[in-house]
Amino acid sequence: MIGVGLIGCGYWGPNLLRNFSDLTEVVAVADLKEERLKHISGRYPAVKMTTDYEDLLHDDRIEAVVIATPVNSHFEIALGALQAGKHVFVEKPLTTSSKHAEILINEAERRNRVLMVDHTFVYTGAVRKIRELVQSGEMGDVLYYDSVRINLGLFQHDVNVIWDLAVHDLAIMDYILPHRPCAVSATGCSHLQGEPENIAYLTLFFEDLSIAHVHVNWLSPVKIRRTLIGGSKKMVVYDDLEPSEKVKVYDKGITLSEDTRYRLQVGYRAGDMWAPQLDNSEALRTEAQHFLWCIQTGEQPLTDGHAGLRLVRILEAASESINDRGKLVELEAWRLAA
Amino acid sequence: MIGVGLIGCGYWGPNLLRNFSDLTEVVAVADLKEERLKHISGRYPAVKMTTDYEDLLHDDRIEAVVIATPVNSHFEIALGALQAGKHVFVEKPLTTSSKHAEILINEAERRNRVLMVDHTFVYTGAVRKIRELVQSGEMGDVLYYDSVRINLGLFQHDVNVIWDLAVHDLAIMDYILPHRPCAVSATGCSHLQGEPENIAYLTLFFEDLSIAHVHVNWLSPVKIRRTLIGGSKKMVVYDDLEPSEKVKVYDKGITLSEDTRYRLQVGYRAGDMWAPQLDNSEALRTEAQHFLWCIQTGEQPLTDGHAGLRLVRILEAASESINDRGKLVELEAWRLAA
Amino acid sequence: MIGVGLIGCGYWGPNLLRNFSDLTEVVAVADLKEERLKHISGRYPAVKMTTDYEDLLHDDRIEAVVIATPVNSHFEIALGALQAGKHVFVEKPLTTSSKHAEILINEAERRNRVLMVDHTFVYTGAVRKIRELVQSGEMGDVLYYDSVRINLGLFQHDVNVIWDLAVHDLAIMDYILPHRPCAVSATGCSHLQGEPENIAYLTLFFEDLSIAHVHVNWLSPVKIRRTLIGGSKKMVVYDDLEPSEKVKVYDKGITLSEDTRYRLQVGYRAGDMWAPQLDNSEALRTEAQHFLWCIQTGEQPLTDGHAGLRLVRILEAASESINDRGKLVELEAWRLAA
Amino acid sequence: MIGVGLIGCGYWGPNLLRNFSDLTEVVAVADLKEERLKHISGRYPAVKMTTDYEDLLHDDRIEAVVIATPVNSHFEIALGALQAGKHVFVEKPLTTSSKHAEILINEAERRNRVLMVDHTFVYTGAVRKIRELVQSGEMGDVLYYDSVRINLGLFQHDVNVIWDLAVHDLAIMDYILPHRPCAVSATGCSHLQGEPENIAYLTLFFEDLSIAHVHVNWLSPVKIRRTLIGGSKKMVVYDDLEPSEKVKVYDKGITLSEDTRYRLQVGYRAGDMWAPQLDNSEALRTEAQHFLWCIQTGEQPLTDGHAGLRLVRILEAASESINDRGKLVELEAWRLAA
Repeated sequence: MIGVGLIGCGYWGPNLLRNFSDLTEVVAVADLKEERLKHISGRYPAVKMTTDYEDLLHDDRIEAVVIATPVNSHFEIALGALQAGKHVFVEKPLTTSSKHAEILINEAERRNRVLMVDHTFVYTGAVRKIRELVQSGEMGDVLYYDSVRINLGLFQHDVNVIWDLAVHDLAIMDYILPHRPCAVSATGCSHLQGEPENIAYLTLFFEDLSIAHVHVNWLSPVKIRRTLIGGSKKMVVYDDLEPSEKVKVYDKGITLSEDTRYRLQVGYRAGDMWAPQLDNSEALRTEAQHFLWCIQTGEQPLTDGHAGLRLVRILEAASESINDRGKLVELEAWRLAA
Repeated sequence: MIGVGLIGCGYWGPNLLRNFSDLTEVVAVADLKEERLKHISGRYPAVKMTTDYEDLLHDDRIEAVVIATPVNSHFEIALGALQAGKHVFVEKPLTTSSKHAEILINEAERRNRVLMVDHTFVYTGAVRKIRELVQSGEMGDVLYYDSVRINLGLFQHDVNVIWDLAVHDLAIMDYILPHRPCAVSATGCSHLQGEPENIAYLTLFFEDLSIAHVHVNWLSPVKIRRTLIGGSKKMVVYDDLEPSEKVKVYDKGITLSEDTRYRLQVGYRAGDMWAPQLDNSEALRTEAQHFLWCIQTGEQPLTDGHAGLRLVRILEAASESINDRGKLVELEAWRLAA
Repeated sequence: MIGVGLIGCGYWGPNLLRNFSDLTEVVAVADLKEERLKHISGRYPAVKMTTDYEDLLHDDRIEAVVIATPVNSHFEIALGALQAGKHVFVEKPLTTSSKHAEILINEAERRNRVLMVDHTFVYTGAVRKIRELVQSGEMGDVLYYDSVRINLGLFQHDVNVIWDLAVHDLAIMDYILPHRPCAVSATGCSHLQGEPENIAYLTLFFEDLSIAHVHVNWLSPVKIRRTLIGGSKKMVVYDDLEPSEKVKVYDKGITLSEDTRYRLQVGYRAGDMWAPQLDNSEALRTEAQHFLWCIQTGEQPLTDGHAGLRLVRILEAASESINDRGKLVELEAWRLAA
Repeated sequence: MIGVGLIGCGYWGPNLLRNFSDLTEVVAVADLKEERLKHISGRYPAVKMTTDYEDLLHDDRIEAVVIATPVNSHFEIALGALQAGKHVFVEKPLTTSSKHAEILINEAERRNRVLMVDHTFVYTGAVRKIRELVQSGEMGDVLYYDSVRINLGLFQHDVNVIWDLAVHDLAIMDYILPHRPCAVSATGCSHLQGEPENIAYLTLFFEDLSIAHVHVNWLSPVKIRRTLIGGSKKMVVYDDLEPSEKVKVYDKGITLSEDTRYRLQVGYRAGDMWAPQLDNSEALRTEAQHFLWCIQTGEQPLTDGHAGLRLVRILEAASESINDRGKLVELEAWRLAA
């Protein structure tokens, strides 16, 4: 049984604690707030509680560390954990800079440790089904990916809304799309002076004809989590808030023919719609199992440090573009690395 | 009774014909397709049919001309009609270039004729109610306008999707917002080589903190017509496909306070939602009445040539930005004119 | 070309007029209100207008009469038309009593005329698809039919809400179900003293295990048109207000197995959902064509006088049951006739 | 701190355990399944576990017993608990017969103990808001209550679907309506031979003009929880599955006037819709607090034994009516008691 230590037990931490507790032994939890630790201790009396996360790094019973602290502390804690010989599972986004992400990747490779990023959506039944539809060729060529991820959300002070919300879409695209973006243009604005952007729009360009767009917003009166994926053969609408039919596959699209005047004729195809049955397992459970499996087998995680780095590079480029009101930022360095 | 002539009777023309017939006398209809004229003649036996629109310009019984032809013919026909002394009602967008729009405005002013553009949404009960909410101050400051206007639509060969669909949102914003945009960044792509863009994303920047964004797409498996308008006091969701509750007003938003560490604290306000009863009159009827009224009284139409020109300028700037993948295009000339 | 005369041109009549005009020659329209005739005449200048429907019965150019008058006049007008040798198409419900319906059937058979009832839903793409799913065995045994058909509707003075709205569900069931009901229990009430019931609930019992229920209401704040059809293999949700996916087929249900203690074990089956592409032709057009076809060929209409009679018998039984607050009323006479 | 014992810890029990643990001291849990106890013990190591519920009745630290066992054991356990001097909180429905409910009420009154039934919906923000709208007169007279409560649910062997699902609506009506039903007509059927009804329809008659209807079904492909309440001034749609706007208040209805021919003219009123902000506290928390409060103060619970009895009487009458296919069953005894 792999001993696990959890660092950070605020919003998402309790879910990690619950899932890892059911799968293996959670040895200790670290959090800065004593009150929070006390509350958790009532529910998990056998788990050691500490306000100093370094205690976990020195604990030999702990083989793997799960990090759910604010983003700007990920790098330091993850690096310390890897240096202490621990396997590391970090919340998304991996780090606040691509340089930091590269250092973590190198450290993990040098020490032969698992470095995995929590891109939860990749482990949902819905996204796995969509990947299957794309990869099998059933959808044809992917023409566009369009996502809206908005709600009345917690305004964060250290990162803007794309680092908080768009990262989910970037993770999904990284997993399901056959190509990777080569440039980004983004716009957005902050409605509170001196605070990070709370509304943003990202366009990603790909080398083929395809395009992706993500709309994220912390200041929407309604919650929307809806993604359209247009294929040349089929199209998908993925609505994460639908209780049962999250993924709908439309046999709709355009058909092309050349008419006698050598001009393209565009016709429409309207066929059936189909909502496949999805695996409803909790994604985080699947993901935690995958992390433990990778530790045991040495297998590379699906959402490893490289995936984390690819996302951080896009987030950096998008932030740069937002600052310059839509200016195109190429993802060259990233292409070299890929 | 004002004699009216209709030029172009394809997709939208029959609606114009029906409404103007109920309000005044439609003297003649011109269309290039004889078959179409024959079909219409069966329903409107008293109306003269012709394949040559110039017949209408020479007909003294016709005081006003309604133009519902493809966009790239608007300028020539409208100019001819104004020069023949007719009042003119043109489909949106007014023209394909701002220069042409300016010429029409000047011609109409010189001859003291009414020049009105069919920005239909401005005449809906929903948009009029939203304007009232904005203008009365009930919504507070407008923080953002975000619209999605997508469906599996007719691919056009002469104009791209923003000239076809985004023009509706530009018309709505022109009518309801207190400020006008000063720059635009737009992206998009065509999935058919050599054809105009079929998917596009526009960001409009305003001089205050606010921002607007419009997503238009001819290649969506589902039809969506949904606009969010975030205000500092209230927020509106306008869903044009809702049969009865098109406009929902949310008493939701953020509240600010400074905490003891001089840092902004952002809180949430979640209150009631309210869907006002709307005037369900057919917008086109209201608009046709307004056109006839302006002819009779000499009043300036709500959606006059200047409004049409403002939209054409934004569409030009957006097209330029799309070609340069998101490059910011300032709307200077437009600001001078405003 | 079959000459048609239309009697009654109020709410539904103009739709009949439009469709029959497109398919054949409408010779004359009769309506009691002169003003209405005048309005229609503007649109159909070639059609003769009269306030005396008997004019149509004496007109030799008219082979077929379409009756869209209030229910309580159907019998007299239809009988007169048959006696004058005309084919007859009557609005639903056929008559206000089963005796009257029987007389009309006999008269039509004796004179070899077509007697058809306007059960419009039977001619929709949605209902035809559902029939196909039921008849092919794809749904398995039909276990129940449950329909809600409510809105803020016109209160009628001469018939209660079941004669106005439930008749649609009875027509659909008559068309799609393999069995016919043998008894009915109904409840309802009127919220206006002395007026017919404006809210009602019907349960129909079948000889197999199946059951049907219809909820109709003129006093609902929201409009609902939703039917569930539970089959032993598949289940259908038919929502007539859905713009595109009116019929959804669920691969859901129960699975049975006997456990070792000889007790039934009920399990669940949750599979894909599928929304078949439907024929979107206007139902009334299809139906009018069918009527003309039956006149020409002598074929029996799908919704003939017998179908009309079956519905009237159920409506009579349901009204009797409502008066006695749910008392079971058997449909014996009807079974004998079937 | 009031010591609490929980008997039965299957489907609903863990929710009771969690809430009572947060509010007071849960001393012991009894359940027949050792495995289940073992699992719970992991989470609640301080709570005593036993397979013999009588242990709890003899435990002096336990003042109050919470019963979440199958319905047919409620009576025996609750009676034992009251006789042992405990306060009792029982899952709905209180008992399987009105005689048993009466015995429990008498026993509780004789011993001056609190007897409360878990009618959870009564403690939701939504139902409390609806009661306020009804009681304040804002809705006018209640004309009807119509509820649909269906899903693909667990088929139960000991009680039919009305005892499982309709009981929720009966509890809501008992709480919000000013009058009580005087008769019931119900229909339903079982699709598994020898098993209780899995689909049922209840009509409740009231002495004024109003009517109530409840549709419950364990065999629906979709989950619906929607209640319409028609008032003479306003109407409510309560959709429990809506994430945020569960209660919508429509300013819609009919208006009456007498025309010159002394005949009632029915007009329509269509006004705004309004979705009030609701208290989102967990209902079970509120309810558990109320139970503890009643123990401390001697106050009568909102959902006391009498409320439980009223519901059981209606359920008995409805079952009797279902067996006789809709036969009206009067609720006389119940009226005497009220």
